[in-house]
Amino acid sequence: MEEKGVEDDVVKRLDCERDPNQKNRQRFGGVGGVLSIEQFFEDQEVPSWRKQLTFRAFFVSFWLSILFSVIVMKLNLTTGIIPSLNVSAGLLGFFFVKSWTKFLERSGFLRQPFTRQENTVIQTCVVASSGIAFSGGFGSYLFGMSERIAHKSSGSKDFKDPSLGWMIGFLFVVSFLGLFSVVPLRKIMVIDFKLTYPSGTATAHLINSFHTPRGAALAKKQVKMLGRFFSVSFLWGFFQWFFMTADGCGFAHFPTFGLKAYANKFYFDFSTTYIGVGMICPHIINVSVLVGGIISWGIMWPLIEEKKGQWYSEKLSSDDLSGLEGYKVFIAIAIILGDGLYNFFKVLTRTLSGLLHQLRHKRDTEELSSENSSRSELSYDDERRKQLFLKDQIPIWLAIGGYVVIAVVSINTLPHIFTQLKWYYILVIYIFAPVLAFCNAYGCGLTDWSLASTYGKLAIFTIGAWAGPLHGGVVAGLSACGVLMNIVSTASDLMQDFKTGFLTLASPRSMFVSQVVGTTMGCIISPCVFWLFYKAFDDLGLPTGEYTAPNAVLFRNMAVLGVEGVSSLPKNCMTLCYVFFATSILINLIKDLIPKKWARFIPLPMAMAIPFYIGPYFTIDMSLGSLILFVWQKLNKTKADAFGPAVASGLICGDGIWTLPSSILALAGVKAPICMKFLSSSNNAKVDKFLSSSI
Amino acid sequence: MEEKGVEDDVVKRLDCERDPNQKNRQRFGGVGGVLSIEQFFEDQEVPSWRKQLTFRAFFVSFWLSILFSVIVMKLNLTTGIIPSLNVSAGLLGFFFVKSWTKFLERSGFLRQPFTRQENTVIQTCVVASSGIAFSGGFGSYLFGMSERIAHKSSGSKDFKDPSLGWMIGFLFVVSFLGLFSVVPLRKIMVIDFKLTYPSGTATAHLINSFHTPRGAALAKKQVKMLGRFFSVSFLWGFFQWFFMTADGCGFAHFPTFGLKAYANKFYFDFSTTYIGVGMICPHIINVSVLVGGIISWGIMWPLIEEKKGQWYSEKLSSDDLSGLEGYKVFIAIAIILGDGLYNFFKVLTRTLSGLLHQLRHKRDTEELSSENSSRSELSYDDERRKQLFLKDQIPIWLAIGGYVVIAVVSINTLPHIFTQLKWYYILVIYIFAPVLAFCNAYGCGLTDWSLASTYGKLAIFTIGAWAGPLHGGVVAGLSACGVLMNIVSTASDLMQDFKTGFLTLASPRSMFVSQVVGTTMGCIISPCVFWLFYKAFDDLGLPTGEYTAPNAVLFRNMAVLGVEGVSSLPKNCMTLCYVFFATSILINLIKDLIPKKWARFIPLPMAMAIPFYIGPYFTIDMSLGSLILFVWQKLNKTKADAFGPAVASGLICGDGIWTLPSSILALAGVKAPICMKFLSSSNNAKVDKFLSSSI
Repeated sequence: MEEKGVEDDVVKRLDCERDPNQKNRQRFGGVGGVLSIEQFFEDQEVPSWRKQLTFRAFFVSFWLSILFSVIVMKLNLTTGIIPSLNVSAGLLGFFFVKSWTKFLERSGFLRQPFTRQENTVIQTCVVASSGIAFSGGFGSYLFGMSERIAHKSSGSKDFKDPSLGWMIGFLFVVSFLGLFSVVPLRKIMVIDFKLTYPSGTATAHLINSFHTPRGAALAKKQVKMLGRFFSVSFLWGFFQWFFMTADGCGFAHFPTFGLKAYANKFYFDFSTTYIGVGMICPHIINVSVLVGGIISWGIMWPLIEEKKGQWYSEKLSSDDLSGLEGYKVFIAIAIILGDGLYNFFKVLTRTLSGLLHQLRHKRDTEELSSENSSRSELSYDDERRKQLFLKDQIPIWLAIGGYVVIAVVSINTLPHIFTQLKWYYILVIYIFAPVLAFCNAYGCGLTDWSLASTYGKLAIFTIGAWAGPLHGGVVAGLSACGVLMNIVSTASDLMQDFKTGFLTLASPRSMFVSQVVGTTMGCIISPCVFWLFYKAFDDLGLPTGEYTAPNAVLFRNMAVLGVEGVSSLPKNCMTLCYVFFATSILINLIKDLIPKKWARFIPLPMAMAIPFYIGPYFTIDMSLGSLILFVWQKLNKTKADAFGPAVASGLICGDGIWTLPSSILALAGVKAPICMKFLSSSNNAKVDKFLSSSI
Repeated sequence: MEEKGVEDDVVKRLDCERDPNQKNRQRFGGVGGVLSIEQFFEDQEVPSWRKQLTFRAFFVSFWLSILFSVIVMKLNLTTGIIPSLNVSAGLLGFFFVKSWTKFLERSGFLRQPFTRQENTVIQTCVVASSGIAFSGGFGSYLFGMSERIAHKSSGSKDFKDPSLGWMIGFLFVVSFLGLFSVVPLRKIMVIDFKLTYPSGTATAHLINSFHTPRGAALAKKQVKMLGRFFSVSFLWGFFQWFFMTADGCGFAHFPTFGLKAYANKFYFDFSTTYIGVGMICPHIINVSVLVGGIISWGIMWPLIEEKKGQWYSEKLSSDDLSGLEGYKVFIAIAIILGDGLYNFFKVLTRTLSGLLHQLRHKRDTEELSSENSSRSELSYDDERRKQLFLKDQIPIWLAIGGYVVIAVVSINTLPHIFTQLKWYYILVIYIFAPVLAFCNAYGCGLTDWSLASTYGKLAIFTIGAWAGPLHGGVVAGLSACGVLMNIVSTASDLMQDFKTGFLTLASPRSMFVSQVVGTTMGCIISPCVFWLFYKAFDDLGLPTGEYTAPNAVLFRNMAVLGVEGVSSLPKNCMTLCYVFFATSILINLIKDLIPKKWARFIPLPMAMAIPFYIGPYFTIDMSLGSLILFVWQKLNKTKADAFGPAVASGLICGDGIWTLPSSILALAGVKAPICMKFLSSSNNAKVDKFLSSSI
């Protein structure tokens, strides 16, 4: 699945630098440019599009969707950093269907062998489904509407609490629009414009490699590694559980660097998830979050806290936005907006200039092909891929008809869900949406970089300001954000999948069906998973608990900012926001202007902003993951590159899936038996005295 | 150094099974029986005995003596299990002098190269010195005399508190007797009887191997490994320190298996020392302690606790010997005595039959040699070794004179130190001592098994009973134990060293001098180290603290048992003691009678008895160490065998040496800043309420 979240852009941008193609080239033996992949698969028949859509593929997809939805939800609700889970989804999908077919083969019941096309169907379905866990906004706009988060910002009258019914309904009416809006453009994007879609290409290479004998052997080892670390991570989560009977207990509150550092949220919280995330994210991301954490919680907040009484009232509670909390939230928003805006214009410029270039180039080649036969230009691979890609068409009336029907349904139902969201807001969004969806799909094809959350933020500000504070602008803005984000996000996802399908000879029809099925699954699974978290953890969204849902707070406050302005902010906060907004743009500019060999050492503002609000504890885990991978690469680069992602996936998945039993235990009211508590020396003496007297 | 402690016999016995010679043979490349070691060293000149005794050797020995005294003291005072630290002493000694000479060589100041003989001098000196830390009885008889331990047993009027002055004096007057008593016998034992002395032989092979180019390269790697794990272990100790501001805090009280298991002392206490000990001790020892822990704390004590009110009074404090504590202490003593007695007679029988055989054989060979020239029977190695061993003689008048002079001084001073120990008790001991010393040295040569602590226990019972309860029999018994233990222990140590010297061509004279110097160092260093522990840790010897000194309690109670009988023991305790005493003998008998391939799976009673009193927590560490080694051996046997001891030594030494700074911190009154506390869910709720109300 693609990386998403407030900082999705950041993660995705840097993922490209890793050059996944190179890794895959290695997998094939590194014969280089002359190697034809399709000649290798020549003797394998490509099944018809109906045969690519098998029951077993969707069965496996369903369970993987649940797995990844849980993981994405957990990441959403803890920090909002979601790394690329492509490799784990690919490995696990391959592993399960391969085991399934092997089992059937032995029992003699196998009717159809496991093909790359089927593998692509699984991948597409899982990515689409777990993508909803992100674009559904459970960690951002949707949960940001709730009363609990509203209490933490100033616009507390304007809220809508989550409920399973309307969430599923909402997702169903908005999630399919993106698919229909870009389906007709697939030939232009994939074949005519030859857009790269780095993530989609990397996934295709991964899947292709699984189906070569050598790749399958490697995959088997990788799956073994993944399984081993999955178990370790799961058991560690299980073990940790016993020691956290209440808030402030357990390994997650281990004052590794002392109590003073702990008070400033500098500690190692023993989270295998974020060690894994650190191993998957490029080193510069990990350095960025660490630097951001040091700047904010190590330097700025302690300094601002000294101004208590001068810059803000002493009497405020610690999470009042008029106090220190205000600086944390709004400076983070300033950086995110600065970075988002810069990159929005950057990608837009590149999209437009790329488009212009393509159109001019196309005219040139058309002129050329009228003179010669253009056929000779295509390699064997390209020819075969093009042939199969164009074989199964999706009628254009289906696309347009689908879009219009869903839009009409949507315009009629959404105002019932969100009374603040008027039907004409939605109509306006739906008129502009196809263009924005195309822009995002095209930009993503060029840069591998989905701007979904940036488009969402634009909607927050525009629709929020239009509705105004008196007509529930906050919820209107947040729900509009949801509508737009879902459309542009699914549009770029679908196009990535078409590219993957193109490279694995999977039919566009089966891709489309798989995406529709996956989206349907996601619309049901994701709200249910969120509901489980919401019901199981009473402190979801509160800063004391394990699940602080930082993006929900940030998104809500952006909406408040857009609707009500900045009147209630503490002293100097706005000035600091301007400074950080400008710095964020400046850093990006410098990064783009200086040579790449230096630019890669400049941290990313978006990544730096994340710890500003939630604190730097997870950056310690991520830095540790980064360090482990770095040392491993120094010791044995080949092995680290081959197994690093598998180890990281195992760590993330194991800990992620532990949240399922842990939330069920919480729902059932089962409390852990022990509290591992950390007391200062003086408090400990008091407690010892108290305990010996009371027992 | 050789393994010592109540269970020294056990550890040492099993160490033989590992066949250290085989390991060393491997080191030499495994050419087998034809390989001559001395031909390899032929071109190296053997320095004169005076030149073997260099300043640098004693300088390095001094620091290593402190290191190993601290480690042995820590082990003494925690569980009493002291593994073979031979390899670490050998590696570190080699490493330091090698670095020293390399440094001088580079600066051009090197006058004398580093030889095997010098290496043997260091080894001998360190072993002799740190041997005092064991035979000085700081964890057993000597500390058992103190008032603190006396309070825990019934004979509380009869005590002598430790003090630096008399401890050093006492050690000086008793530690040298052993040396003088067996010196004249060295030719008979080493050359005529050709006793094996497995530990001495293994040490010699180790030292010889260090001085071959290939062995030196391996040693370098081993030292590197040792250093790495030393640092890890030291830093881990340092890190742990921060979290134990008071009793019951920190990792040492981690209820790994839950609070209920913790209450029965089943938990993993994160001690790298005992993980290392587990890696050095043979697997069967680790299994034995674990089984012993399960039988006692897992089954017996909980069952006996249910009889509270029936078998013993409910009103007793938890450490009253008339209660549950009595069962723990006396059943442990019963097993130890049963095992000790069985093995005493077993070794005595073997000693006598071996001696008889030797004498008869000697007469035969004398008859033979009168017919042919016996010269031809000796290999080149043996011939060269014999020649050098016989070159430097130690005059017999020095030995006898030394013994008599020290005995006279000792008889005159000891009654001043221990008023309960009459001069005629000492005289009797000194008359029998040479015979016992010879027996122990001979038995050790045959079986690698020093019975020092068994002889000590004999002295406790005989002298204690002789003095009787009215004349301070407890202290008299314990001090007599000290006198005898020191003599027999140093006697067998010296003979081991002569064997090592014989195999490394070190002169007997330099061996003797080195042993004397080492013993002198030990007589000063060990009491000082003990004094540091005693002053730094207020709870030394108390069951609540880190240093429970279990053997001090056991030894004291043996003395009480011998002097006062068993009148105050709780109901059925004596019956259980008889049962366990008999079982202990029976298990040993079975182990000796059935074939070795089955016998090696039978646990050792002596090892099983250790957790009976102190609890099974350290057995978890040891089992973990054993498991790590086992898995490592399965994965890569060669590597595990070559580096396992180095890793284990690193773990033991690092954690051991951390106790130095930690005790200095304790002396300076520096408290750790944090308490890592483990509270039950209900207690935690109370504490949270209390803290929020009080702060």
